[in-house]
Amino acid sequence: MKIGYIGLGLMGKPMARNILKAGFPLVVHNRSRESVHELVQDGAEEAYRPSEVAEKTDIVFTNLPNSAAVESVVLGKDGILESARPGQIFIDNSTIEPESARKIAAELEKAGVKALDAPVSGGQIGAIDGTLTVMVGGDAGALEIARPVLNAFSKKITYIGLSGCGQIAKCANQIMVAAQMVALAELLIFAKKSGADPEKVTQAISAGAAQCWTLDHKPARIFNGELTPGFKSAMMLKDLSIVVDTARAYGIPIPSAALDAQLYASMIETGDGHLDNSAVFRVLERLAGIEILK
Amino acid sequence: MKIGYIGLGLMGKPMARNILKAGFPLVVHNRSRESVHELVQDGAEEAYRPSEVAEKTDIVFTNLPNSAAVESVVLGKDGILESARPGQIFIDNSTIEPESARKIAAELEKAGVKALDAPVSGGQIGAIDGTLTVMVGGDAGALEIARPVLNAFSKKITYIGLSGCGQIAKCANQIMVAAQMVALAELLIFAKKSGADPEKVTQAISAGAAQCWTLDHKPARIFNGELTPGFKSAMMLKDLSIVVDTARAYGIPIPSAALDAQLYASMIETGDGHLDNSAVFRVLERLAGIEILK
Repeated sequence: MKIGYIGLGLMGKPMARNILKAGFPLVVHNRSRESVHELVQDGAEEAYRPSEVAEKTDIVFTNLPNSAAVESVVLGKDGILESARPGQIFIDNSTIEPESARKIAAELEKAGVKALDAPVSGGQIGAIDGTLTVMVGGDAGALEIARPVLNAFSKKITYIGLSGCGQIAKCANQIMVAAQMVALAELLIFAKKSGADPEKVTQAISAGAAQCWTLDHKPARIFNGELTPGFKSAMMLKDLSIVVDTARAYGIPIPSAALDAQLYASMIETGDGHLDNSAVFRVLERLAGIEILK
Repeated sequence: MKIGYIGLGLMGKPMARNILKAGFPLVVHNRSRESVHELVQDGAEEAYRPSEVAEKTDIVFTNLPNSAAVESVVLGKDGILESARPGQIFIDNSTIEPESARKIAAELEKAGVKALDAPVSGGQIGAIDGTLTVMVGGDAGALEIARPVLNAFSKKITYIGLSGCGQIAKCANQIMVAAQMVALAELLIFAKKSGADPEKVTQAISAGAAQCWTLDHKPARIFNGELTPGFKSAMMLKDLSIVVDTARAYGIPIPSAALDAQLYASMIETGDGHLDNSAVFRVLERLAGIEILK
């Protein structure tokens, strides 16, 4: 099985590298060529257009910033669809709108290509270590064929349902992650301003019903002044924008996630978009006129 | 060391029973007498007024519904303060306003009594099993004296700081728990209405960055149709009201927790206050015009 990977960014590059390490022959393409050359040095084959990747491989992956980019790479000029052939499998690791995933799958279906929307969770560290969580929508048979390749970069693969369902699960994931981040921000400000040590408070509550990944991992970094990502606030806003747009399209009430999106939008406006998504407490610091670490 | 326990409700009764089981002589009082008689059968001594409990014991616990009730039992007619003597320790296991805890501690201090605000987390099951988490504010020396008694009903005791700090930690705990419950509600509705199986979605996301106590424990119950508490929505609204009132008093921005309080208020209005706090998805079902389990 020959694999193609298009989109060698923060996530795509280490994921592609893990596919290569697992022993699959790999063809790579990226708009900026530097990461292409890195992977060529690791043993990958270089391609210059998405259509060229599709021409040379059995399974084509994409990992791109947004719906428009994926649609362009699949359906546009020199796109994957131009060289697609029946029996091929297309797997998108990007986080994009569920509706876009469904549209792409429907177009590829006409050419006999099975599509999977397979967004991931676990961040750059998970991509490097090969411990990502993959949420899969689309053709279940195609998933079974592609599973050994997905295993190269993940520790957990869950099949959710038809096309778009992987993206819906990713939206659900980000609804919960953002809620935890904002709640952490609120409780830090709450503790500080009402007269308790915010760090001791997070230690006290982390073992009970409030336990969560965010409380387990973020307070130690925050109190150490480490606000580098992790997962960038700007990316969280991007993901929450997909959530909000999808909710609007389907008439879904998400009052809290919509509020969270507003808070992350405020982070971008105040120049904090490059910080970790746990740094959303800085928005509340401005509203409260205090600093947690002082 | 002779112990007193006032307030033998859903939480207080099993906590008092665990103190008794640990071998401490115990004097109990409760407005309704039935639970007093139960504990007398277990070996406790009966008292008829808070002042009588204080007269007979070295450490007096309270576990009552709200700030007004605790203030009345401590500072009111026939209250603890009437019989208080220097060296005594007062421990409040109720969830009340941090300001009220501080006021009570200041009044008791004048009589030489050391006060601890020591709200708990872990629900009725934790109270019965003796596995509660205790968040403590107040006199650190008094905590060391009382620790063997607290150990009778808890698995983790964290000292946070001066009077009120235990209540602040409890507020922080409820900010996070409510955020998880509301996020779970939103993502269930989101998945259902955009076309994915909500149960599979919760399974897919529970191992990654979205992991939390709520995702670990609640979806299985919800998809089994079990909405009995656990922890009642009406109690969550009570706790969030303390959060909102305290935030107003101190000028603390808690946009998300304030929204969560509104959603729980809506549950009470629509007759769902007796259900588990995870049933907040029913508010969104009404807004969305769908049912998750259908």
